[in-house]
Amino acid sequence: MKALFNVAISGLLIASLSATAFAEDEKEEAVEYRQGVFEAIKWNFMPMAAMVKGEVEFNKDEFAMRAERVAALSKMPLEGFKEGTAMGETEEGENDAKPEIWKDWDDFKGKMAALEEESAKLAEVAKGDDMDQIKAQFGATGKSCKSCHDEYRHK
Amino acid sequence: MKALFNVAISGLLIASLSATAFAEDEKEEAVEYRQGVFEAIKWNFMPMAAMVKGEVEFNKDEFAMRAERVAALSKMPLEGFKEGTAMGETEEGENDAKPEIWKDWDDFKGKMAALEEESAKLAEVAKGDDMDQIKAQFGATGKSCKSCHDEYRHK
Repeated sequence: MKALFNVAISGLLIASLSATAFAEDEKEEAVEYRQGVFEAIKWNFMPMAAMVKGEVEFNKDEFAMRAERVAALSKMPLEGFKEGTAMGETEEGENDAKPEIWKDWDDFKGKMAALEEESAKLAEVAKGDDMDQIKAQFGATGKSCKSCHDEYRHK
Repeated sequence: MKALFNVAISGLLIASLSATAFAEDEKEEAVEYRQGVFEAIKWNFMPMAAMVKGEVEFNKDEFAMRAERVAALSKMPLEGFKEGTAMGETEEGENDAKPEIWKDWDDFKGKMAALEEESAKLAEVAKGDDMDQIKAQFGATGKSCKSCHDEYRHK
């Protein structure tokens, strides 16, 4: 009876250990995913910034292509923000998310939706030739990034 | 005269050092960018695989959304493959790319174009209801990933 009990306990322990391990894996993957998406957003955003600032010549096709990419990418990171994956909350621990994200989830979600909206508008105006409109909408998109970073990202 | 010469030499040294540092930064960023994009592809690809294998219930809307994302993402990694950024060729050194990518650039580019094409087709058929067609096209897309991994990725 005792042996059987021990086997049952070991079984439970193993089951609970692997459940934890699996959850941890899922958390790390969520962090890597959202970081990957933000990396891709940054990569495409920076050359647009250089064009808007006049540091490099404005290339309409490239700008429109990158705006299209950022609009597509902006829909992706939200599902990577799984609760319990802020800085220090995972085993690897290395990320910039603040736990306020989950406390103020609706506000955070709203800010992510604003990024989606502004970058969709940017992709739209980037098809045209109105440079003032393009610059203004690029500014609005950058602002929507910043408003989230200010509140929900470390450093 | 000698002092002037020394100043000129120091200036050259600083210029060349910062040029190297900048190039190294650019290389690391290119690696992070393409890894980020692949991370995002994987994240969206895995739930489709689980649906195709019947491990989770097929959800048409989710499948179509993820297929759309993979199609958009598949256009992005190529520009992150900057020459001199294979495994061990950058300071951080940690990535899975083989230097054969730049030796066989046209073949590599062709394989990336195949991923783009197959995933665009997948996004298209995913709008319909023909499960056989969806499964077959999912297989073709996975194959286009694999054919590149087999030749150009370590492990």
